[in-house]
Amino acid sequence: MPLIVQKYGGTSVGSADRIKHVARRVARGHKEGNQLVVVVSAMSGETNRLLALAREVQQRPDPRELDVMVSTGEQVTIALLSMALMDLGVKARSYTGSQVKILTDNAYTKARIVSIDEERMRRDLDAGYVVVVAGFQGVDEAGNITTLGRGGSDTTGVALAAALKADECQIYTDVDGVYTTDPRIVPTARRLDTITFEEMLEMASLGSKVLQIRSVEFAGKYRVKLRVLSSFEEEGTGTLITFQENEKMEAATISGIAFTRDEAKITILGVPDRPGIAYQILGPVGDANIDVDMIVQNVGQDGLTDFSFTVNRNDYQHTLDILKPVIAHIKAREVQGGDKIAKVSVVGVGMRSHAGIASTAFRTLAEEGINIQMISTSEIKISIVIDEKYMELAVRVLHKAFGLDQPAS
Amino acid sequence: MPLIVQKYGGTSVGSADRIKHVARRVARGHKEGNQLVVVVSAMSGETNRLLALAREVQQRPDPRELDVMVSTGEQVTIALLSMALMDLGVKARSYTGSQVKILTDNAYTKARIVSIDEERMRRDLDAGYVVVVAGFQGVDEAGNITTLGRGGSDTTGVALAAALKADECQIYTDVDGVYTTDPRIVPTARRLDTITFEEMLEMASLGSKVLQIRSVEFAGKYRVKLRVLSSFEEEGTGTLITFQENEKMEAATISGIAFTRDEAKITILGVPDRPGIAYQILGPVGDANIDVDMIVQNVGQDGLTDFSFTVNRNDYQHTLDILKPVIAHIKAREVQGGDKIAKVSVVGVGMRSHAGIASTAFRTLAEEGINIQMISTSEIKISIVIDEKYMELAVRVLHKAFGLDQPAS
Repeated sequence: MPLIVQKYGGTSVGSADRIKHVARRVARGHKEGNQLVVVVSAMSGETNRLLALAREVQQRPDPRELDVMVSTGEQVTIALLSMALMDLGVKARSYTGSQVKILTDNAYTKARIVSIDEERMRRDLDAGYVVVVAGFQGVDEAGNITTLGRGGSDTTGVALAAALKADECQIYTDVDGVYTTDPRIVPTARRLDTITFEEMLEMASLGSKVLQIRSVEFAGKYRVKLRVLSSFEEEGTGTLITFQENEKMEAATISGIAFTRDEAKITILGVPDRPGIAYQILGPVGDANIDVDMIVQNVGQDGLTDFSFTVNRNDYQHTLDILKPVIAHIKAREVQGGDKIAKVSVVGVGMRSHAGIASTAFRTLAEEGINIQMISTSEIKISIVIDEKYMELAVRVLHKAFGLDQPAS
Repeated sequence: MPLIVQKYGGTSVGSADRIKHVARRVARGHKEGNQLVVVVSAMSGETNRLLALAREVQQRPDPRELDVMVSTGEQVTIALLSMALMDLGVKARSYTGSQVKILTDNAYTKARIVSIDEERMRRDLDAGYVVVVAGFQGVDEAGNITTLGRGGSDTTGVALAAALKADECQIYTDVDGVYTTDPRIVPTARRLDTITFEEMLEMASLGSKVLQIRSVEFAGKYRVKLRVLSSFEEEGTGTLITFQENEKMEAATISGIAFTRDEAKITILGVPDRPGIAYQILGPVGDANIDVDMIVQNVGQDGLTDFSFTVNRNDYQHTLDILKPVIAHIKAREVQGGDKIAKVSVVGVGMRSHAGIASTAFRTLAEEGINIQMISTSEIKISIVIDEKYMELAVRVLHKAFGLDQPAS
């Protein structure tokens, strides 16, 4: 009997009616002969309501207590979904993260899963129950409630699928799969039937919000078969995230165009070109818990070089403040930056074996007069930083240049 | 160092501001050198909101899932109060019923406490923490979440006080103590400084809603010193519920006048006066889980007797339906009843040693032309059933007749 883990997000369980809708879907899957573990998020809006309440009481809410509080959101949903299932005549039982012992470290509000005790779930599944588990939450060794941080419900789903060795982990969301790019920007964007794990990782890290990147990493590590589906459409098989490239039926070179507006760039000009300089610049930034994304350093001239990197836009001012003393210390000429940038990325495992992808991308942008500010590449993507105002245009022309609006061959 | 358990109800923690107010009060007690365990209810309105949501999904919500759901109400409050305490610089830590292992049986929605593991709380108290515990909830042996039923937070408070051998259990509520009767009916009603446990039990069972009767019983069993206080007034020592009559400073004969409108009476006329007849009548009623309160049977004449009892008004019709076949079977003449009754009770341990209490009560009512329908007495109370419309009048004249409007000597 196939064992499927399904995960439904906050919008999918946002009201009593939507919960009943999800219950009907789960009941159908159960009737078709699957063993089902269902992971749910808090009803949409609930987590924000609780956060606001916490802030009314304590300006910077204590992380331990915040987790005690916000974890109630999912606890309400698991009970409601179980009731809705029983109302349809399906045996169901709910569990909090603590009850199925989703053991985490004790990093409140951003805990990491250590292990899951699957025995209790297995027993219920064998007894014909649908098991409903609260996403986003766990428990540390001392019995304290923890949460995995926002979006952690996807991770719960994948982790349960890994622990139970499920045949598939289905993530139900408000889109019906992964697209070649955002259809709001390129109406001809196509849904992909399959995408490789690595491509998905790039797409997720580049702002394609279909899946949390952490859950994709987790799926990769434990080789969990992930599928993204719409919780609102009855039909459709969504997008399957595969591990073997030969599982991928579409032979396209490029899978999609991802983009993000979330970054800001910082360039330090006239940096003395000597060993250790990158560490001297980025060490203090990392110490402040600021994630650095792209890093570009070109070959120096006359003993000087320019050093650029991008950070999350929210960290832009803070990063500049941190760098001020650093600049003086390393005797660099000056620091420049900008937060009106966008990063557009061409993603595809196919580019490994195809020359000319990069030049096609650069030519396409040049033809539209779009200036390239930074470039960084990996085996399966090319990321290009441009002026924010050209973002939509760049996405459209690249989407067309790589034939993504054509049906897959 | 004195160890005090404090319990704050839903109204006392009904908003962020009220929670901060409670926190200030707790902080003061902590600063004064007390070890404090604080039990809180769900914010007022929250439990009803959750119940309504559950009923939207399942007409008769599954009890196990209902407990998973409604227990989140207190879980939110413990986190908020802990945060508010930390905001005042007081070390605080919250625990759900499951975390401090308030072990109960598995009677969902009305579980009974079996034991409490006080070790973790003790460790925190010794380390200078205020321990904040969710009322109303526990966990069964299999790790399922249970609730104690409505008003169960008082019971949690008393049970924790018993387990920790606390010096006092303080129940903070929206009244500032126990009164000689309801001040809304008799404006001259006085607050009692002390009341005996037995009197409190009678007052509680008779509709004086200051404390849940279950928590009073629990306090009696484990000899927990209970004090009722107002959470809204800064000063005042409330009413202490004592165990030794000699602890009671007031020498009054009568402590108070209790009353309830919640009952209905049923009389079976012409019942064959033979052994076992009371069981034949009340057996089926009890089997239907209907609680019987007063039972009156007079000496029979000509082999026949009349048999009366009272039930909760909500059970009135159901009880009549149950009795129909019984009446036929035992060959009684007929069944009568009425739900427009009130029960007024004179309560006081003093009456044990004072003759004439009953006759004073009967004379007082007679002088007002109030007809007495049923009487039942115990060592410390006299309960009288009268027409509902005379209830307020009866309470007023009895309150005056026993000198309850006079300051305690």
